[in-house]
Amino acid sequence: TLIAILPGDGIGPEVTTEARRALEALAYDLTFEEAPVGGAAYRACGHPLPEQTLDLARRADAVLFGAVGDPDLDGLERALRPEQAILGLRRELALFANLRPARLFPGLEDASALRPEVASAIDLVIVRELTGDVYFGEKGQRQTATGSRQGYDIMAYDEHEVARIARVGFETARKRRGRLCSVDKANVLETSQLWRDVVIEVAADYADVELSHMYVDNAAMQLVRNPGQFDVIVTGNLFGDILSDQASMCAGSIGMLPSAALNTDAKGLYEPIHGSAPDIAGKGAANPCAAMLSAAMMLRHSLARPELADRLEAAVIGAVADGIRTPDLGGTATTRQVGDAVIARL
Amino acid sequence: TLIAILPGDGIGPEVTTEARRALEALAYDLTFEEAPVGGAAYRACGHPLPEQTLDLARRADAVLFGAVGDPDLDGLERALRPEQAILGLRRELALFANLRPARLFPGLEDASALRPEVASAIDLVIVRELTGDVYFGEKGQRQTATGSRQGYDIMAYDEHEVARIARVGFETARKRRGRLCSVDKANVLETSQLWRDVVIEVAADYADVELSHMYVDNAAMQLVRNPGQFDVIVTGNLFGDILSDQASMCAGSIGMLPSAALNTDAKGLYEPIHGSAPDIAGKGAANPCAAMLSAAMMLRHSLARPELADRLEAAVIGAVADGIRTPDLGGTATTRQVGDAVIARL
Ligand SMILES: CC(C)[C@H](C(=O)O)[C@@H](O)C(=O)O
Ligand SMILES: CC(C)[C@H](C(=O)O)[C@@H](O)C(=O)O
Repeated sequence: TLIAILPGDGIGPEVTTEARRALEALAYDLTFEEAPVGGAAYRACGHPLPEQTLDLARRADAVLFGAVGDPDLDGLERALRPEQAILGLRRELALFANLRPARLFPGLEDASALRPEVASAIDLVIVRELTGDVYFGEKGQRQTATGSRQGYDIMAYDEHEVARIARVGFETARKRRGRLCSVDKANVLETSQLWRDVVIEVAADYADVELSHMYVDNAAMQLVRNPGQFDVIVTGNLFGDILSDQASMCAGSIGMLPSAALNTDAKGLYEPIHGSAPDIAGKGAANPCAAMLSAAMMLRHSLARPELADRLEAAVIGAVADGIRTPDLGGTATTRQVGDAVIARL
Repeated sequence: TLIAILPGDGIGPEVTTEARRALEALAYDLTFEEAPVGGAAYRACGHPLPEQTLDLARRADAVLFGAVGDPDLDGLERALRPEQAILGLRRELALFANLRPARLFPGLEDASALRPEVASAIDLVIVRELTGDVYFGEKGQRQTATGSRQGYDIMAYDEHEVARIARVGFETARKRRGRLCSVDKANVLETSQLWRDVVIEVAADYADVELSHMYVDNAAMQLVRNPGQFDVIVTGNLFGDILSDQASMCAGSIGMLPSAALNTDAKGLYEPIHGSAPDIAGKGAANPCAAMLSAAMMLRHSLARPELADRLEAAVIGAVADGIRTPDLGGTATTRQVGDAVIARL
């Protein structure tokens, strides 16, 4: 079983190192191979997603991804910016299903900007479509008839794209509390109208799941007002980008939250949702929990080792509950110390 | 001076009645004319925005709008749904600039789901572009080459649209704390790249305003984490829809928040941001403050009577601070009682 490690930029290398150590400590037969990605890859080879990195990702059974993003490279043309690496991997590996769980961990009730009683009720998964929508439609800059500059992007979904992510949403809800909320903007967008129609069609196969629909503006309100009302949210690429970041912040500590991006073969890319955090990079202050929990998701979704996933998750949650915390959680532990504490609990 | 009153659906009539009474109590020479809109208009005349309603809105110096939305009419074809009335008014009156202030009012520190110390720092204005973006681009349903259904919507902005809303953003910031944050998704969208380029060009005329840029996913996080960091946010129609609703919920009581939609002649449509709230319609339980504060925005932005706007705002804030509150704020006052209390303070 080959795991590709793509550490990337900023704190990416520090946190993926701890996640890899945790996987190794589970004494399980995994082979690791590393390759550069993002700004680091641009600096090393002139491209954020070099051919050999993409090749490794293709060969691997799963990808453990750190983070990409480097403010010093923001001036590059779009195709060479660090973020293009993650967009390219999603497209090339057809990673259409992004799972983003958000919950409040024991002992972190005070980490959220929400009142503790509101925040502690958060336990939801956002299922975000990841290879379509306005992200991957035709786009460009052109001149209008009157000669002014115009930027444009085509938003679109076809019925198969909606149906397959809807199924992931229903399946996810079925394994949890059985409630799925589909978020769209069907009162304005035709893309959303098709989305809603197809979700309703797919629902016929999931009579045991309770389906509701919500407009995205209302969803953004409800995630603040009462996030505990949600079990699973399924939504498109753009709305999912916004709402999943909002939801994770409601849960308080983005340093704790993992994500998975899956294709139809259960090949997956696993990534902490925090970014490259250049301001704290290289200081040993980064929270490795999100990367370690991403490794746990990998065990569960791509490697079919749910019992090891459970052990790793319990170890991370235990270490944090015991107060072994990096500065983002108000603690004084280093990245390595948290890694050690988790490994000690495995 | 002619004011069009478009009460609309649900609690719209109740709250616009109180706002109108407040304007009358200011003993100022205004003429009022009323017309149906939204679901009410559909039921009365078969269309959510009848010709005579649009005509009144065109003739008037300003429009006081209640709310549209009626769940019983959700099954209608899109062109006949209540929401089309507000989209049609924005388009026909070229109301490109939507101002949505969000702040926490004295005495309502406990109304927000955010911790009081986080919520009480909220004092921001979202300047949302209102007549472009994916809302008004070409859209439809079509078949792909392989015969499947596809929904699509074209997102686009041209440089003039961006420049004029950017100017509103800079002007608004200049009259406040001098900070403007432009929100986009320039790492993915070409529409956003043009947006960012043009905002930077316009900034040359506003050296006294501090400009920053933020991706929309990060903005959704920051509005939860630390909303007090924002003074003025300027953004496109779709992102503005989502973020302004989120921001208003952060401030706690959407029953308190007004909005203005302006065109280049300072003609404006003024609307509480809460919707039609069909569940409490007709019960005298609706909070009229947002509608009354919308009337205050009308005095300020369309009628050039800032001193009357100040008086009306102070009266609303005073009544609420004194505990005259509808149930959404934890009180027991009726819509009319709050209206009376405000008028008594004028
Ligand atoms: C970096 C960026 C292109 C990316 C996205 O918008 O999808 C990120 O925000 C994410 O959510 O993974
Ligand atoms: C009713 C709907 C079309 C509208 C919008 O999306 O603009 C509403 O959400 C708003 O923000 O005024």
